[in-house]
Amino acid sequence: MLGRHVLADFFGVAADRLDDVDQLRACLESAARSCGLTAVAPPLLHHFDGGGVTGVILLAESHIAVHTFPEHGYAAVDVFSCGDRDPELALRVFRTALAPQREHVTTTIRGASVS
Amino acid sequence: MLGRHVLADFFGVAADRLDDVDQLRACLESAARSCGLTAVAPPLLHHFDGGGVTGVILLAESHIAVHTFPEHGYAAVDVFSCGDRDPELALRVFRTALAPQREHVTTTIRGASVS
Repeated sequence: MLGRHVLADFFGVAADRLDDVDQLRACLESAARSCGLTAVAPPLLHHFDGGGVTGVILLAESHIAVHTFPEHGYAAVDVFSCGDRDPELALRVFRTALAPQREHVTTTIRGASVS
Repeated sequence: MLGRHVLADFFGVAADRLDDVDQLRACLESAARSCGLTAVAPPLLHHFDGGGVTGVILLAESHIAVHTFPEHGYAAVDVFSCGDRDPELALRVFRTALAPQREHVTTTIRGASVS
């Protein structure tokens, strides 16, 4: 196994949190740090005129991404971490910042049978 | 449902293909185009001195990422597409370029119960 890939759906998030590009940038940086992952470039984010943010931080051999939909109170958070790093630590950063009413999380093992 | 998130593990890929940052950049752009997704910035890639590439293209409300491990003949490809776009079309671009001997693909529905 090379890593774990966590896909988190956060529901019932306040629209202003989902539209706060500066906070989401800070989350991407903090999430990477929290599980000891190394960024290879600054976070890349885009704030839509109509509301909503799409962003990613590219890490050594993995990534963390966030896509928000204020009109649905929804955020998709994606943490791909390699080795024995715990992606839950990164997820906690977003959970604290976004305070979702409900969440649905799936974890997929990546590279389960690499030689 | 807001979108589908495909996580593809490609095994048995030739090391030179996994180390070709220009081809992987072209794949990210072509994959986005192939399923009608709109990039909000040029692809961001990093080529490691020791071999391997990590890259992402940030799309309107979604992303496509690739992380390669030439030493394992392995690539992780990640296609998050929104709406009714078919992520399989994007996956095909990588499958053709990387010619894996074996693959393992999982698809996760994102935002399954947004209001």
